[in-house]
Amino acid sequence: MRRPTIVDIAKAAGVSKGAVSYALNGRPGVSDATRQRILDIAEQLGWAPSSAARALSDGRAGVIGLVVDRPARALSAEPFFMRLIGGIQEELAGGGTALMLQAADDRELELATYQRWHAERRVDGVLLVDLRRNDSRLPVLAEMGLPAVVIGGPEYTDGFSCAWTDDAEAMNEVVEYLAALGHRRITRVAGPAEFVHTEVRSIAFDRTAREVGLDAAEVVYADYTSAKAAEVTRALLGSEAPPSALIFDNDLMAVAALGVAQELGVSVPEQLSIVAWDDSVICGAIRPALTAVGRDVNQHGRLAVSLLMERIAGAAVKAVPTLPSRLLPRASTGPAGR
Amino acid sequence: MRRPTIVDIAKAAGVSKGAVSYALNGRPGVSDATRQRILDIAEQLGWAPSSAARALSDGRAGVIGLVVDRPARALSAEPFFMRLIGGIQEELAGGGTALMLQAADDRELELATYQRWHAERRVDGVLLVDLRRNDSRLPVLAEMGLPAVVIGGPEYTDGFSCAWTDDAEAMNEVVEYLAALGHRRITRVAGPAEFVHTEVRSIAFDRTAREVGLDAAEVVYADYTSAKAAEVTRALLGSEAPPSALIFDNDLMAVAALGVAQELGVSVPEQLSIVAWDDSVICGAIRPALTAVGRDVNQHGRLAVSLLMERIAGAAVKAVPTLPSRLLPRASTGPAGR
Repeated sequence: MRRPTIVDIAKAAGVSKGAVSYALNGRPGVSDATRQRILDIAEQLGWAPSSAARALSDGRAGVIGLVVDRPARALSAEPFFMRLIGGIQEELAGGGTALMLQAADDRELELATYQRWHAERRVDGVLLVDLRRNDSRLPVLAEMGLPAVVIGGPEYTDGFSCAWTDDAEAMNEVVEYLAALGHRRITRVAGPAEFVHTEVRSIAFDRTAREVGLDAAEVVYADYTSAKAAEVTRALLGSEAPPSALIFDNDLMAVAALGVAQELGVSVPEQLSIVAWDDSVICGAIRPALTAVGRDVNQHGRLAVSLLMERIAGAAVKAVPTLPSRLLPRASTGPAGR
Repeated sequence: MRRPTIVDIAKAAGVSKGAVSYALNGRPGVSDATRQRILDIAEQLGWAPSSAARALSDGRAGVIGLVVDRPARALSAEPFFMRLIGGIQEELAGGGTALMLQAADDRELELATYQRWHAERRVDGVLLVDLRRNDSRLPVLAEMGLPAVVIGGPEYTDGFSCAWTDDAEAMNEVVEYLAALGHRRITRVAGPAEFVHTEVRSIAFDRTAREVGLDAAEVVYADYTSAKAAEVTRALLGSEAPPSALIFDNDLMAVAALGVAQELGVSVPEQLSIVAWDDSVICGAIRPALTAVGRDVNQHGRLAVSLLMERIAGAAVKAVPTLPSRLLPRASTGPAGR
């Protein structure tokens, strides 16, 4: 089971090493019959060119990269990333390309990783998550000439392909749904303000809140963690005029809020409606089951990979929307003011 | 920002390409002063040897591999894998080694992936999960000569390093805890029977059940999914002599069982106690909070990587236990027969 070499093939075929090299590289110098015999023997022996040798000849690594610039521990807790990685794997399945994954704690480290991957020819392209306004990664990647696809946008992605989700439309649907249930005081508990998808949702939240004429529509920024969401929810429920509905930017925060409501004796949905964003398995499993904005995160991962493969092959930049998100009403939302 | 080449360095330093090559490869042929000047310029230009060139010279890929032989979608749903991958990333953080990740639907595809990675020199070693009795992967990897570390064992890992968890001790603690609460009829809802860690837990369950003299101690095999767990739980709770306590092999199944109990009007923990294995964020967040066997899965990932790095460097095979699991009693367990 030792890796077969050109010498092994030459010995088995009874030809010179040079003849094997000509045959394997499709160059003249051997007859067609000999070429075929050599190729058959190479296949029987399980010969494959080393990725190193191929990378030196055609410059391709056969690998795409993903840096998640959150702490490695945060990567462990967030279902979104696991579903995204699952989708990336689905799209790569069966092909010759693998995923290189790295968690990097900060933006500087993320940029250094791209530079090293590129300098060492480790990846053919990268996927970017957590897009910021005027994101410092984009000009650096453009200058490097490393193909990249943004998972997000389409705002602030000039010059890069992106796979984006219409979060504004989904937020509009959520606010209209809650307003139709009679809610007049709604608070949105958001992810970090600097992310583009956070901003897109906040703008849509404010706009629809005005359109449907809510009495109070506040946005509070958090960090996707259970701990911060619990703290924010306690403060909101203990305030003088608490909201009757909360919209969270991920599902981990919504789950934590449900726990806080139950601790404080605030019944869900009678006294408080809760909407989660992203619909991982926990939303349907918990009781009351959480109303959620469901996205096909796997499909998002698959789409991003297919766009990156196109870019690596030289296709033009394009922005492609994912499948639409869907509001999934469950037991955590109900009429206001009961 | 184009990748600097040896030619660029030669031009900037005003020396020949050959002199640059001597300097960068630490070979004689240039003076110490010239060597230092060339190295300084190379550093200023951000020069790095390509991974392909390095792999050809020293044979190292600077990459470790992990194949998860579950469908890519299952990878998305199982918190265990995300925490494991988080731990792997923590251990790799800052070093020059990256993780190559692949989901492969079946064992054949997994073996083919190792063979390709090895033949193409893509990885220096691999981590193995979901160990089976007389696992077909081990002899294949041994024959290939590809360093590998088993995440599991230590049974059935002859000749391979492993990072293993004492599941027998943890199961013993769970059964004794439930027996002390007065439970006489306990069912264990296990993962697939062919995994070694499933067998270890089943043997410990049976042994401790005999020691504490339970009236009924059944093992039912499932597949870690919510759907199968819900089906099994419905059947158990609808049987003539239902168990008063259930022990699950992961937390997704325990969450699903809690949902079924609530649907059927079986109160937890008054009429049914539930214990989860693995303590991802959902266990503490759900109400009632789930009693769980907590493991430091991140530490498991870190340990496995450090063992693999040692093996790649030529160290002897060894079996190292992870930090012990801990039983975390929460609201889903209580006295039997209330």
